[in-house]
Order: sequence, then structure tokens, then C-alpha cells
Amino acid sequence: MAVRTVINAAGRSVPVEINGRKAVPFKGVGKHRPRGGKYSPPIPTCNDFPDDGNKVVKSLEEALRKCGLRDGMTISTHHHLRDGDLISNKVFDLASKMGVKDLVWFPSASFPCNDPVIKYLEDGTINRIEGSMNGPLGRFVSDGRMKGTAVLRSHGGRVQAIQDGEVKIDIAVLAAPTCDFFGNAKGTGGNSSCGVLGYAKADSMYASKVIVVTDNLVDVPCYPMEIEGNYVDYVVVVDKIGIPEKIVSGTTQITKSPDRLLIAELTAAFLEKSGILKDGVTMQAGAGGTSLAIAVFVDEILKKKGWKSKFGFGGSTKYMVKMLEEGSMGYILDAQAFDLDAVRSIENNPHHIPYPVFNAYNYHSKGNLTSMMDIMILGATEIDLNFNGNVVTHSDGYLLHGIGGWQNCLHARNVILPVPLFRDRIPVIVDEVTTLCGPGELIDVIITERGIAINPLRKDLIKSLKGSGLPVRTIKELKDEAERICGKPRKAEFEDKIVAAIKWVDGTVIDVVRKIKTK
Amino acid sequence: MAVRTVINAAGRSVPVEINGRKAVPFKGVGKHRPRGGKYSPPIPTCNDFPDDGNKVVKSLEEALRKCGLRDGMTISTHHHLRDGDLISNKVFDLASKMGVKDLVWFPSASFPCNDPVIKYLEDGTINRIEGSMNGPLGRFVSDGRMKGTAVLRSHGGRVQAIQDGEVKIDIAVLAAPTCDFFGNAKGTGGNSSCGVLGYAKADSMYASKVIVVTDNLVDVPCYPMEIEGNYVDYVVVVDKIGIPEKIVSGTTQITKSPDRLLIAELTAAFLEKSGILKDGVTMQAGAGGTSLAIAVFVDEILKKKGWKSKFGFGGSTKYMVKMLEEGSMGYILDAQAFDLDAVRSIENNPHHIPYPVFNAYNYHSKGNLTSMMDIMILGATEIDLNFNGNVVTHSDGYLLHGIGGWQNCLHARNVILPVPLFRDRIPVIVDEVTTLCGPGELIDVIITERGIAINPLRKDLIKSLKGSGLPVRTIKELKDEAERICGKPRKAEFEDKIVAAIKWVDGTVIDVVRKIKTK
Repeated sequence: MAVRTVINAAGRSVPVEINGRKAVPFKGVGKHRPRGGKYSPPIPTCNDFPDDGNKVVKSLEEALRKCGLRDGMTISTHHHLRDGDLISNKVFDLASKMGVKDLVWFPSASFPCNDPVIKYLEDGTINRIEGSMNGPLGRFVSDGRMKGTAVLRSHGGRVQAIQDGEVKIDIAVLAAPTCDFFGNAKGTGGNSSCGVLGYAKADSMYASKVIVVTDNLVDVPCYPMEIEGNYVDYVVVVDKIGIPEKIVSGTTQITKSPDRLLIAELTAAFLEKSGILKDGVTMQAGAGGTSLAIAVFVDEILKKKGWKSKFGFGGSTKYMVKMLEEGSMGYILDAQAFDLDAVRSIENNPHHIPYPVFNAYNYHSKGNLTSMMDIMILGATEIDLNFNGNVVTHSDGYLLHGIGGWQNCLHARNVILPVPLFRDRIPVIVDEVTTLCGPGELIDVIITERGIAINPLRKDLIKSLKGSGLPVRTIKELKDEAERICGKPRKAEFEDKIVAAIKWVDGTVIDVVRKIKTK
Repeated sequence: MAVRTVINAAGRSVPVEINGRKAVPFKGVGKHRPRGGKYSPPIPTCNDFPDDGNKVVKSLEEALRKCGLRDGMTISTHHHLRDGDLISNKVFDLASKMGVKDLVWFPSASFPCNDPVIKYLEDGTINRIEGSMNGPLGRFVSDGRMKGTAVLRSHGGRVQAIQDGEVKIDIAVLAAPTCDFFGNAKGTGGNSSCGVLGYAKADSMYASKVIVVTDNLVDVPCYPMEIEGNYVDYVVVVDKIGIPEKIVSGTTQITKSPDRLLIAELTAAFLEKSGILKDGVTMQAGAGGTSLAIAVFVDEILKKKGWKSKFGFGGSTKYMVKMLEEGSMGYILDAQAFDLDAVRSIENNPHHIPYPVFNAYNYHSKGNLTSMMDIMILGATEIDLNFNGNVVTHSDGYLLHGIGGWQNCLHARNVILPVPLFRDRIPVIVDEVTTLCGPGELIDVIITERGIAINPLRKDLIKSLKGSGLPVRTIKELKDEAERICGKPRKAEFEDKIVAAIKWVDGTVIDVVRKIKTK
């Protein structure tokens, strides 16, 4: 039976119910007002916990049994171990062995290493994933093969959903590079260091049961307590929570592509000439090759002018660490560490500060870090003539990426998308995005190797670039040029079936992904 | 109309309703099971907060107005500024000026500097205080002059009450020595440093509205964020939040009284000879003169044996700091800093770690720090033949002290009360405590200048002291000796009217304080 749909404020047809629960259609940026109170997880009591504080049980299986794992439960994990994660899959191996069915997996992100859970989606152990799905997992969803409907949220939207009780986590299984027997845990130390554990904060606070899995049990107190032991039910010690070289890359690298370097140069020039770059600027870039190049070029300008960036918000990389150490950046506020230099820095530099997405990104809190920031460098798979952005599907219609912090970051003062005009001869600028992830009113500037398009809403920026010599063009001109080179792209074709819902930062449904049309 | 009372599991007559809300009588240690979920404060939205993150308003009055201050609201404050606090009274000065009535003041503790609020209890601005009441405030309550019924909770019980929704804080007014415009705040820095802000954590997380008042506004990010800005509604900058020399004492001092020194020596000898003191021991003492002397004597034993204390839980003092710096203590976990050395240490020593009572003391969480601890040194105003303890009233029946962390600390492995046999010729050991604050089954040892009484339940300790040469006696013998010297004390006389309820750590009512009989 098809679910009833309505047209939301962005003109997209979205369901009023997802996985049997009422869903609120997107109402416009800043238009939805939440009602009621935050989610109230069960009140625990010290009666149920050992006086000596030792919560270690002998295996993950025992911990899951003690947590009462059963059909239909929601299990959360975090992605700080990235592609080196050895714990998330293990949870479902055990659940399958225990004969448990219809679980909801609620990861903060998934990676290629998680592709093996496809077999559990197939055999009914897992009903659905609510979280990012890249590569094969995304194809599985797009092919209409997942039993439940996927729900994609931004990193901040995930916190909002947990806090507001949209998603009730029954069991959080949180891998931790270091932990004491009470459950105080952190992201550094041991052989599986990932730097920070900020994505797990909401899970630990709101889940009914919390299991911490570590390969580095230390004496009380494990400090800093990124996960606080008084939220933790059980601690499990294993040989290895992750594969170190896949947890953090040995080193992040700036792009070597001449086109991407040109985009990065143009972006740095734009930031300088528009006057956005200034002493005390705040900025978030990212760990992609182009973003890193932009950070390096920006750093050169700052140094030349004798300016300093007040802080950068991580994902942190060796390039940010270098800026911090050389004094051209005051602080790194960090939600995740991408490379070894970043991990080392966060262990040793008091100006490299863990700043969980819980604090930076949750739209249902009393302010976000992102809206205070001057410069936000983001990517997109597609951008349309109204500056709307897509980050989850490709133009062929397949769900291939998660939202990450992208939607949250759109709230910065100047949102800049440096993107190539086309990828593999597929234009990036299109008439209308396949999937709407971010409304155009929040996207200020598109920078391509063949010109810069400024959102007409940003009259101030357009004015500031008058006479700058920069190649400012309309977005239509950029789109036309791409199509002259690559031809008009074929539109993806879909069946009616909704396979994934895309949530906005306030929990409303901004768009859906439908099943790819069977040939 | 008198409220209906029942006899609770401790044999005390307690009301089934307090201030119009249902109250649960004490059921015995570890017998009460909480039901339902944690309190769910209203869901906020970034829509209501400035994009630039600047929450500074021009005065505390404006902030209170914006928070919608009105009759009957519950206002919380913390006591980290101790007797130097300039903010708590100011809130009620403003409320009175605004004509607001029947407020509930919910401080984490009160100090003599708060005595001026008596006028607001008299004129109806404040209905009642739920929190500690020392000296004149306590007398005001004992004389039956407070309109509502006082509710006294331990520090951990206060967190439990907030978390469980027993107390719904409408507005938390949190003074902070350092704060940024977003509301991230900490206990160090500026002219009013108090070291840590751990008592304010629950207030910031669960209050509907949160105001941070600072005299030291710094650039974003204020770090470490003991109060997280995304819980904060408004920031107010004032000239002075406190009087520095009354916030932390220049220096804490060990007792000079020969009797107290004897008690301290006996306590140290008891710890050594009983085998409780060992390498890796964990301990909490306190900042009183006798406690400090015990800490010094214990430190000497540790050094002599080449042992080390794993950690001490603060209230921290220069004596703990010295142990930390000299290596005879591994860490200080700290809920409040009592003197200047402690404040300096927490700013500079990474092994001096803020550890909020939220994490250490809340009985409705997944374990407490206190139950893991080996040695807990506490005081009492009275102890009875069943080892029951009283810390809130004196033998004359007057309410003169708060509970502090005393009840929470009773959960440690070895609870030791070094007390003088009498104070001002009033015996400390009595037939039955005037007010029951802690059940005798949790109190292990009473150490007086004239002998040591061990709770008969602790057969292990009695055995361990055989042949030790220490003056072990029964508690009855100690009581009889005191009465031989001072005479049998007169029992306090009360009227029926209940003026204060004493909560146990699980939110149940363990006893009450009644109005002092009018002569």
C-alpha cells in the first residue's frame, strides 16, 4: 500500500508517514517550531550497578543479552573508526546468531567496511538503516531492496532526532579507543586512536542502554571523559576495535588536479576580494583535496596580511594543525580527526578542543556554532538554477552518499560550494536537483573552474566583487557552458516507491529518494 | 490543615505530600525503584536565537524579563561563589522590584551572605527555599516562619530531583567567572575564579531557561565549557559576580585544637592498622580542620610505606594539591575548589580534573563515584546508638546546616566519622538522632578523642583491629562517657508543624524537621 504524500514547502512530494510513524513535511527554512519536551530516557538507579563501579562483562554477546536485545530494537553506533570499524558489523553478526530480527541500525555514518551488513538487510536481521549509506549500501536501497524506508539525517539532525525522541535508541554500542571499567571513555590513546568521540555524545545520553567496547582498558579515571561513565551500562574489552590505518589516514593530501587547484585558487581569491576574509575570520573547510588546497591558499593570504583566523571547526587535518601551530589559527574546535597529525594535536595541544556535533550542529538547541561562522566550504553532487543543493544522490538517481554535516553547515554566513563544472562528463549544475538536500536560499556562492556564480539574494557579495576582475557569471551561464561541453544530461527515472526520506535539520521531510526504475 | 503522615521504613513520621506534591516515604537503603523517564525540558530551536551567537543582554533584569519571570516560578542558583556570591540575592532584589511573588529558590547551597533573602521570605517574594539553610535562614525555618515547606537534599539528591523532574527549574541563574557571548562558561579566569562549576551542570541541562552572569566576558570559545552554550538563553555581563576573598579562602588550615588533632591521629592510626589504607587507595576528606589534619597524617603514612593514593575526590584544598604535586596522589577529581592553591592547580595541572557532582553523586544514574571509594571522612552533628547520623539540626532542634554531599558519600566502602565526643558540653552521641539524615547501616566507624566505635555490622573491621592497641569501644560506652561528663542532654521540643523535609538520595522522604516549640 502506497503511503499518502503531500507537496512540502520546497515543492517536493513527501510522505506523511515513514516506517509507521507520522512525519512532518518541510515548512521552509526556520518555519517549523518544535513542540513539547525532549525525549526522556528511563531513569536508572545505582541499585542496578555494582558498587565497585566495575561494569566489564566478558563479551559483546553477553552485554547485548544483558541489554535485552530483541526484535525491532534500534541499535546505534558511531563512525569515528571510519573504514577501520570492527565493531558495528560484529553487533549484527551476533544479533543474527541470536536470531533477532527487524532491527533498526542507526549509525552516525557508514563506510565501505560496513557493506557486509547487506546480508543482514537481506535476511531480515535488519529492517532498515537510518543513516548515511554510501556505495553498495546506497545501491541496495535505491534498488528497492531494503525492507524499511531509509531515513537520512545530517549529523546535527541525528542529534536533534535523538534529543526530540524521533528516534529512540534501545542500545548504543560505542567503540572507544580508551575506557575505564566504569565506562568513562575517550577517543585518544591505545592502538585505535581516532582523536575524538563527539558523535557518540547524544547516543550515550539518550539511549536506554549503553555498551562501550574498547581495546584499551585503563584505570579509573579515563580522562577527558568524552563518554561519561554514569551513562554507561556495560564495558566490553576486545582485542581490537579497529584497523588503525583505516581509522585515520596516515596523511590527508591536497588535490593535484590542475582543474581543482584552479577552483581552489579562485575560491581563495574570491574570499580575499569579497572582503569575507578578514582578521579574526572563522572557517570550516573539510578534508577533501580541493578543500585542503583552499585552506592552504587562505593560510597564505592570512600570513601575507598578518591576519589570524579565530578558529577553524574540524574535521581536522594536518593543514589545520599546521595553521594552529604556526599561529595563523587561534583554535581548532573539533568534531572528528581525519589524520594522524590531527590525532596527535588533539592529544597534546590545549588549543585543539573537542567540540561535539551535539554542541555545534543540533538545530533544536539554543544556538549552533555553524551560524556564527564566516566561511563554510562545502561540496555537492548537483546544484540547480535556484542554488538548491544535492549531496546524497548522483544524477543517475542512485543514493550514494550521506548528508554528513552539510545541511548544518548551510547556516554559516557565507556558504561557498567550490565544485567542478562537470564530473565524468556529467554536469554538476542542473535545471533541478534530483534530490533536494539544501534550499538555495542558504547557498551563497558556486565556484567552478570556469567562473563564479553568486546567489542573486546576496546583493552585497555581487557588489563587493564589482571590478575585482574575477570571472563572475550567472548560474545559468555556467549551466549552459557545461551543457555545451557535455550535452544535456539524461534525467534519472524512478518508480513510485519511496526508498529513503531526507530530513531537514529540524526533523521535517525535505525530500525523498525513490526506487530506481527497473530497466 | 495538617498534612497526612505515615511512618517510613526508618520509623520516622513523614508527610505523603510536600508543598502540594506527592512525596514517597523512605523505603530503606536501595529499596526504592524509580519509574518512568527523566524530565524532558522544552525543546528549543535555533530559530529563537541570534545567528551570530551573541546572547548578551544588557542587564539581569532584562534577562529575567525575557525569561518570562512570573509568580510561582522555581529559580536555581549554584554556590560556587560561596560566601562571596553577589548574584543570588540580586535575582530576588529584582524579582521583588518587579512585583513577582511566591518564587521557589533552589540553590545548590546557601551561605551567610544569602541571609538578606529572609526579607523576601517575609514579604512573599519567595515562598520557600529548597536547599541548604545555615544559621539565620535555618532559624527562620525552624521558627515556622517560612510560608512553604523547605526541602533539603544532598548534592546528588539535588541532581536526581532535577533529572527526575521532581523539581522543574524555570530559570537557572548561573554566575560564571568566565563566559563567552554564546554562554560557554567555566569556573576559572577573571577576578572571581572559583575553580570549577560542576554544581551547575544539571541546572544548565534541565532548566527551561538559563541565564549566565559573568564579570569576565571572553572571546568564543570559552574553554573548557563546564556550562555548554547550547543550553544557555542569555548572557549578562556585570562588574562583579563575587567578592574574591570570600569565594575561596586564601588558605585552608588544619586544626590546632589538641583534641581534634588527637582525633585525627587516631583516625590515621585506625586507617593504617585496619588495613583500609593501602597502595592505590581512594579517599575523600573535606576542608574542615580535622579532615585536613587526617589528610596530612594519611599522606605521611603513604610516603613512609612508599604507597600512593589513586585519586582523591575534592572539594580540593592546598593539602590535596600538595599530595598531587609530590606524587603521593595520582589525580584530584574535583567538584569544588576550596582555596587559592586548589584554583591554581585546576587551572594548570592536567591531573586535577573537574568531576561534577552530576557524575559523581546522582543515585539515579548508572553508578556513582562514591561507592567505588575506599575511605570517606565525614562529620555529623549527632550520631545515635544505631549509628544513624544527623547533619542538619543541632540537639536543640534548630535547622542549622545543609546536607551537602554527606548522604552521597555514605555509599563509600568505609565511612568514618571523626567527631568530638561533645561540643560546647553537648554530647554528639545520643540515644536517637533529632533528625535522621543517614541510616546507621551505612556508617561504619565513629572516632572520638576518647575511643573508636565500630558498627557491629562491620565484623571484618572489628576483627582487623584485634590486638591493634587502638581504643576500640562500643558506641554505648562512648555515649555513657559523654553523659558522665556533660550530663544527659535535654531533648528538643517541637510542635506538629513540619517546616522541612529531608530527602534521601533516591528522592524519598527519610525524615522531617518540625517547628521549634514556642516557649
